[in-house]
Amino acid sequence: MTVRAHSGRRPGESGTREAILHAARRQFAELGYDRTSMRQIAIEAGVDPTLVSHFHGTKQELFLSVIELPFQPADVLPGLLAGDPQDAGARLARFVLGVFESEQGRSQIIGLVRAAASEPAAARLVRDLLTREVFTPLAEGIGSDDAAYRASLVGSQIVGLVMARYIVALEPLASRGQAAVAAAIAPSLQHYLTGNV
Amino acid sequence: MTVRAHSGRRPGESGTREAILHAARRQFAELGYDRTSMRQIAIEAGVDPTLVSHFHGTKQELFLSVIELPFQPADVLPGLLAGDPQDAGARLARFVLGVFESEQGRSQIIGLVRAAASEPAAARLVRDLLTREVFTPLAEGIGSDDAAYRASLVGSQIVGLVMARYIVALEPLASRGQAAVAAAIAPSLQHYLTGNV
Repeated sequence: MTVRAHSGRRPGESGTREAILHAARRQFAELGYDRTSMRQIAIEAGVDPTLVSHFHGTKQELFLSVIELPFQPADVLPGLLAGDPQDAGARLARFVLGVFESEQGRSQIIGLVRAAASEPAAARLVRDLLTREVFTPLAEGIGSDDAAYRASLVGSQIVGLVMARYIVALEPLASRGQAAVAAAIAPSLQHYLTGNV
Repeated sequence: MTVRAHSGRRPGESGTREAILHAARRQFAELGYDRTSMRQIAIEAGVDPTLVSHFHGTKQELFLSVIELPFQPADVLPGLLAGDPQDAGARLARFVLGVFESEQGRSQIIGLVRAAASEPAAARLVRDLLTREVFTPLAEGIGSDDAAYRASLVGSQIVGLVMARYIVALEPLASRGQAAVAAAIAPSLQHYLTGNV
């Protein structure tokens, strides 16, 4: 099937789908879930508004298609959790700060956290994604009886760092260097991983 | 000046202002900043839409009129920070969890955090309020050279707890008891207050 765009260009179906995903990714990250509309995505992608739902379903389904983690937990968690357990907090803190200091990683995680704070349906999507992709593998890596609880405590500090440092830009946390902040939160992550919780 | 509502009732000006504030408080908390509209506030308050901006200015100004902290930092921080400095993290953690477990306190803090994650203008309003009302007095209470940095690290863990436990409802953190969660985060807050950051 070929889709004829209003402009007279004739992108193939895959080009149209990709243009919609590109616009959706940008608007969800910049505007947050609530203020992103299917209509504005269609306008930015240069396609008829009906094609957005035709190819990508509901707003929630489209959101699920474009949210991405800035790293593949299955690739990195085993390495971070291997080695001396008493240093795992420091390794995790350095890794997380490294991801967030890249523009793409920061933009992806900000989009996720802002969606989590928006309407309850979006919060559920984010919770399910994070539980499946991050917290379950993290808990498996921790391996203790109460590993799922420990993983969710680690998550609370990391989400709070994203909010305070990157979204709210609370000073002086927002302007401290990456290595200093990693060193400051490492003992908290270590406490959640191996301490008395 | 007397305002005549559409219904034919004749509330006084103060009644109209109060009805608008009441509707605004409810909608900002339930829907978040982005999805709350001046028009819907007017409808819920039963007043003409023009009166909302007439009495309360812009959406940002109205938001500022209704956001409230669930506690008065000036009243509670000195007591929490007095006494053995090595127990201050535990006292702060118990206090915070106690506030969040009351329905009103939780609803106020959820409204604040959700607004902070919404559009940048609202995030700035929340940051300025928290800096003035919470972080500056907290830093004064901590009193060390790097007290402002310590206060912002404390803030990152508390905001993250609100996100993970109350907004995203990440399990098993969301369903653990108040005392257990306070005990789990206390060493992290203690680290930020007096540890090597």
